[in-house]
Amino acid sequence: MDYVNGPGRNHLFVPGPVNIPEQVLRAMNRNNEDYRSPAVPALTKTLLEDVKKIFKTTSGTPFLFPTTGTGAWESALTNTLSPGDRTVSFLIGQFSLLWIDQQKRLNFDVDVVESDWGQGANLEVLASKIAEDKSHTIKAVCIVHNETATGVTNNLATVRKILDHYQHPALFLVDGVSSICALDFRMDEWGVDVALTGSQKALSLPTGLGIVCASPKALEASKTAKSVRVFFDWSDYLKFYKLGTYWPYTPSIQLLYGLRAALDLLFEEGLDNVIARHARLGKATRLAVEAWGLKNCTQKEEWFSDTVTAVVVPPHIESSEIVKRAWKRYNLSLGLGLNKVAGKVFRIGHLGSLNELQLLGCLAGVEMVLKDIGYPVKFGSGVAAASAFLQNSTPLIPSRI
Amino acid sequence: MDYVNGPGRNHLFVPGPVNIPEQVLRAMNRNNEDYRSPAVPALTKTLLEDVKKIFKTTSGTPFLFPTTGTGAWESALTNTLSPGDRTVSFLIGQFSLLWIDQQKRLNFDVDVVESDWGQGANLEVLASKIAEDKSHTIKAVCIVHNETATGVTNNLATVRKILDHYQHPALFLVDGVSSICALDFRMDEWGVDVALTGSQKALSLPTGLGIVCASPKALEASKTAKSVRVFFDWSDYLKFYKLGTYWPYTPSIQLLYGLRAALDLLFEEGLDNVIARHARLGKATRLAVEAWGLKNCTQKEEWFSDTVTAVVVPPHIESSEIVKRAWKRYNLSLGLGLNKVAGKVFRIGHLGSLNELQLLGCLAGVEMVLKDIGYPVKFGSGVAAASAFLQNSTPLIPSRI
Amino acid sequence: MDYVNGPGRNHLFVPGPVNIPEQVLRAMNRNNEDYRSPAVPALTKTLLEDVKKIFKTTSGTPFLFPTTGTGAWESALTNTLSPGDRTVSFLIGQFSLLWIDQQKRLNFDVDVVESDWGQGANLEVLASKIAEDKSHTIKAVCIVHNETATGVTNNLATVRKILDHYQHPALFLVDGVSSICALDFRMDEWGVDVALTGSQKALSLPTGLGIVCASPKALEASKTAKSVRVFFDWSDYLKFYKLGTYWPYTPSIQLLYGLRAALDLLFEEGLDNVIARHARLGKATRLAVEAWGLKNCTQKEEWFSDTVTAVVVPPHIESSEIVKRAWKRYNLSLGLGLNKVAGKVFRIGHLGSLNELQLLGCLAGVEMVLKDIGYPVKFGSGVAAASAFLQNSTPLIPSRI
Amino acid sequence: MDYVNGPGRNHLFVPGPVNIPEQVLRAMNRNNEDYRSPAVPALTKTLLEDVKKIFKTTSGTPFLFPTTGTGAWESALTNTLSPGDRTVSFLIGQFSLLWIDQQKRLNFDVDVVESDWGQGANLEVLASKIAEDKSHTIKAVCIVHNETATGVTNNLATVRKILDHYQHPALFLVDGVSSICALDFRMDEWGVDVALTGSQKALSLPTGLGIVCASPKALEASKTAKSVRVFFDWSDYLKFYKLGTYWPYTPSIQLLYGLRAALDLLFEEGLDNVIARHARLGKATRLAVEAWGLKNCTQKEEWFSDTVTAVVVPPHIESSEIVKRAWKRYNLSLGLGLNKVAGKVFRIGHLGSLNELQLLGCLAGVEMVLKDIGYPVKFGSGVAAASAFLQNSTPLIPSRI
Repeated sequence: MDYVNGPGRNHLFVPGPVNIPEQVLRAMNRNNEDYRSPAVPALTKTLLEDVKKIFKTTSGTPFLFPTTGTGAWESALTNTLSPGDRTVSFLIGQFSLLWIDQQKRLNFDVDVVESDWGQGANLEVLASKIAEDKSHTIKAVCIVHNETATGVTNNLATVRKILDHYQHPALFLVDGVSSICALDFRMDEWGVDVALTGSQKALSLPTGLGIVCASPKALEASKTAKSVRVFFDWSDYLKFYKLGTYWPYTPSIQLLYGLRAALDLLFEEGLDNVIARHARLGKATRLAVEAWGLKNCTQKEEWFSDTVTAVVVPPHIESSEIVKRAWKRYNLSLGLGLNKVAGKVFRIGHLGSLNELQLLGCLAGVEMVLKDIGYPVKFGSGVAAASAFLQNSTPLIPSRI
Repeated sequence: MDYVNGPGRNHLFVPGPVNIPEQVLRAMNRNNEDYRSPAVPALTKTLLEDVKKIFKTTSGTPFLFPTTGTGAWESALTNTLSPGDRTVSFLIGQFSLLWIDQQKRLNFDVDVVESDWGQGANLEVLASKIAEDKSHTIKAVCIVHNETATGVTNNLATVRKILDHYQHPALFLVDGVSSICALDFRMDEWGVDVALTGSQKALSLPTGLGIVCASPKALEASKTAKSVRVFFDWSDYLKFYKLGTYWPYTPSIQLLYGLRAALDLLFEEGLDNVIARHARLGKATRLAVEAWGLKNCTQKEEWFSDTVTAVVVPPHIESSEIVKRAWKRYNLSLGLGLNKVAGKVFRIGHLGSLNELQLLGCLAGVEMVLKDIGYPVKFGSGVAAASAFLQNSTPLIPSRI
Repeated sequence: MDYVNGPGRNHLFVPGPVNIPEQVLRAMNRNNEDYRSPAVPALTKTLLEDVKKIFKTTSGTPFLFPTTGTGAWESALTNTLSPGDRTVSFLIGQFSLLWIDQQKRLNFDVDVVESDWGQGANLEVLASKIAEDKSHTIKAVCIVHNETATGVTNNLATVRKILDHYQHPALFLVDGVSSICALDFRMDEWGVDVALTGSQKALSLPTGLGIVCASPKALEASKTAKSVRVFFDWSDYLKFYKLGTYWPYTPSIQLLYGLRAALDLLFEEGLDNVIARHARLGKATRLAVEAWGLKNCTQKEEWFSDTVTAVVVPPHIESSEIVKRAWKRYNLSLGLGLNKVAGKVFRIGHLGSLNELQLLGCLAGVEMVLKDIGYPVKFGSGVAAASAFLQNSTPLIPSRI
Repeated sequence: MDYVNGPGRNHLFVPGPVNIPEQVLRAMNRNNEDYRSPAVPALTKTLLEDVKKIFKTTSGTPFLFPTTGTGAWESALTNTLSPGDRTVSFLIGQFSLLWIDQQKRLNFDVDVVESDWGQGANLEVLASKIAEDKSHTIKAVCIVHNETATGVTNNLATVRKILDHYQHPALFLVDGVSSICALDFRMDEWGVDVALTGSQKALSLPTGLGIVCASPKALEASKTAKSVRVFFDWSDYLKFYKLGTYWPYTPSIQLLYGLRAALDLLFEEGLDNVIARHARLGKATRLAVEAWGLKNCTQKEEWFSDTVTAVVVPPHIESSEIVKRAWKRYNLSLGLGLNKVAGKVFRIGHLGSLNELQLLGCLAGVEMVLKDIGYPVKFGSGVAAASAFLQNSTPLIPSRI
């Protein structure tokens, strides 16, 4: 039974789940194994060691939860905070909204800093709140690195600077779901206390791993944090880490081998090269949008996201029609506008295992859909803008020289 | 990179994760998809409908959580109970112990009914507790259908009879992790309020789905239950069920297609035939154990489990040596003894997609390992006992007649 | 070990082997089976029945040789002809050249009708030879339906007309390697006596099946043909067809299941829709080439091929540099110019499981490579020409409406 | 669509095609590639180098024909011999019979040395023929190393001794289809001129590669051999070897990567260890047959085959009923008796990627089938005999110590 058919490949340009490389599919094509044999811990050990590299941390402790990003959020919060704790959280789009909603339902006292959708987190407000908070009632600053709904990347280095400037001890919790492995992220340098991502994003795996990394300060906080938690509790993992068996409950054997393959691919290309590739594809996408005469939902260049671009459609067009048409006619999967921007934007995800020609095929497809839907696009205009940039900036594939 | 090597197949006889049929591996061998396209909901709809059949319920509401059995436990408890609620729970082995531990950490008032490991849940004590509880302080009876650590199957019909006899309104929560799809389980007939299983058990998938099914009474309870929950909250799912998009957060595309294939296989063989096959393989295993002169950890026939057999080794033998040797010499994966029975038992898992000859190969392997380890087994004795029974009782493969 | 690496997908636009759909990959992801069990013949029977449909024959007899197109050629010739027999064969490119070479080495008396590379078979010369051949010394007319080296499609209906006009009994042997399942081909209507293709072409499988279909007249000829043959002998197959076991030697289990999946996909889309899709992609490619100011190697529209386009590069450019660059920088696989047109053309294969956006990605890639190599292409020009045509002509994906 | 269903794994114990290791299945789970890119030749080069090791040759030249064993035979013969050439060939079972039939159809003058089916090649007759052939009319001695139909292994070293003793220049052609990679085979030491095998045998791949290895003397002979050949011609390959592109026509990309994985596994285990494992499993099988009171079709110990055992059934039993029953009831695939021994023997293939417990499961299955069919087998008797031997002789899995 197949629900996605039609000739040729599906062009998957939603901002997650993203395309899985053949190498990773191959690695996961295997029977189950006994996770209590010596083999699975041996494999797990390499994963925990290597996963730290994608967070750019040496002091952090990673956890591979069998869950999604939503579960990873919950793990980050409940292990470090107690009910009633005050958090500062930025509402700038659907995913930050959902995280804030979770924080409220987990009984934290959420101090919401709201911006227009399309703007980044208002760090001036953060600075003033931190400045005022002499008694350190703020226990955590929670921020989404890259808001997937609007294509906005927040400046994490500035958050750290603010906290440091006021010598504020608040924990620094970062949702890196659509950033880590794709955007520049530096856990240790930026003093992030908990960072997290999901396997189906830039790591290019199936959904199923919520990867959480905790700083020593976060681990320390977890010893006294009173939020109720069992499945998401770090302490159970730490106990099994010490035993060398690693797993308090059954992991997905396939995802472990898949993660091994994904990390191997990542290191083979080089994490910085991967980030540079995302920057290239992100810029190419934005050049195409501009050439089409359409607006980027992201209001300032400083917030432009290299993993997802939310494109604003003219008022008379319903953006979900674009998404539907792309799927029905061209086997192209684009992202819908969500909540406040529903109907107003469609999204092009350009993260994960992608290359220039895949993106150009997508852009050509968007041009045809725009024409279908009645927008007077000039065929080839976006592709030309993107190509001119890419042809200048794309390196040779190093392993082929 | 492969951590489980050696010629030929690994013989996987742990009680989970179990062998994955080729059909299921094939179905999962695919790229990610946009879970917001019309395709994934269309698939999900068939899954939710069909998954009810494995619980033998028509009135229940299933949830496919991206989690493990531990997460499914947490979902069952937090959606139906409030902190401080009294539960009656049976401690008869490592997995019931872990569930009880979770109940305590989730701040329930757990009334533990303990038995020797190797015995079933003491339902006489349950009856007296229920009889005494005129004021209905007991909010839930929590029971593991099949204790995987000792190979003990509890009698769920009796639990229902007790509750009905005293017209007690307590919720009836069942861990069916190593039973559902393998042992006789009847959610509606037995008035089970929440039942749950994990994908890596008798469903023969990778780890990653915690499948929870809630009765109308459980759904009703979830409206007032005050336990904190977000990731595991049923209400988010119910909201998306109504929308027809089904997923509050990203599911594993691969596991959805895998579940489709697993259910198709199950219904093709016939659920009752699958259960009969497990009964056959369970009995054959016990006959072999008897022929070897070894004791079943399970103390009475009424509790014998058809999905896992815990074999007691003579006092001078360390059972973990058997497991280690089986793995190192014969590529045979057996289950360790856990906690109280560590070193004293090893376990043969005989659940999931298995047939007679696979089991006989395992039994022959156990014979060689027993000899290796110094136990005076007569070669072929267990195989002979099992074969004599199987040769009389195995049906032809219907699709081949 | 991987030899084709680099981020994202390889863009495979050689005229074979072509992209394999995920459904086919999945179907082939399986262990070996006993080919003498009842299962493999049951499967084979459906394949032989259905494979006739891709030849548009009801009276033909198909053979699934475990070989390549070269082997299929040999099978077609040795089963129908005797050493010394006169064949008329058309030399119009590398593949017709290789077939002619084979005919010579098999000791036939080959009457070669040569054309410029880029022209179709000279059927006027055929007509005069047939007209002159009152004594019927010509035993077979051998023609490549689609010359893969130059992108030239020959007019088979005219060949039949010529033979019929002169009531000439020569066998009509057709190489349909890069045409069948992609171009209009009508075995029965055109009175083709042997037609053949390879699994790695429009059927979108791995290499390994040489599919040969013989008319009743060809089968009759095979009874007296004196060419030595064993592996490629039809009579061994016919013997096993009668027995209902089908295979004189071991087939590839994986390719049989893969062929089943490929045929299912083909019939689901509809053979005529598949052919229309190839026509659409072929035309789009030619429009792009024109927009780039480059010449099609094929000299007249009547010969334009919808499965491969050979693009002539300006004299100062070495076409193999384009192919090399495409592969090294953009993960794009294009076809080299072969033999007489080496260095002068590069080839875009547009056959098999492909869709519009894949092709547009390829065309955008070619534009970048052309610029890389110093050709003054206008970015987006080819894509625009192709898009304008495709946006007008691409149907909705029927299964998604 | 699946034609081999039923719960659990199929137990594949035919002497080919054999079980494919998961590592090999994974390696083959990939899209097609351009075989003219630099990647495929780079891969091919390692394969040609490493494949020589399985023939134990340093001076031989290997060819990887996209064909089966039957095609490999044809390649061996037509490249080295001319029509009318005299060959000495041994008829000892169905596969030697088929090769002889091929030799006759290829117009060689076959001098057939026949033995009872169950006996090895009569090398005394060979010696006398060679002794008498002063004028060297015998151009080739053709021998099947291991006759798969009867489970007879011929002594190749003796053949070489005879030829050397009489300084006879005849070519020494060996069918190693069911021996190479499983039985001791030494191309250089034994002066074999052409040896061949098929991928679906001990190499544990799908069908599709006919692997032929030619000595320098055989290559020299190919320069003057007049048999007609094109597809199977070595000279086309040699031409492309020199060019460094390796392939005169399209190879199966999947089989090349699969062969890489299969060779890696083989060398990881160690070729001599693999051969020792086959010896162990062969002996265990024969001990079981003896314990059942049944006769080995192979008449003397010197000819016992370690890759297949043909078991003679009592006169009142029809052996094909055993094969049918095994398949229908126990998902066990056994080999039929062929031609002269049809109905009289069934065959247990024990070659390829197999281990002890797989074999014991098979033997237990045969016991149940024998009982089903009315033969008074003692359950466990064969398993016991095999186990006692295996428990003494099986080494630890080295990679796990």
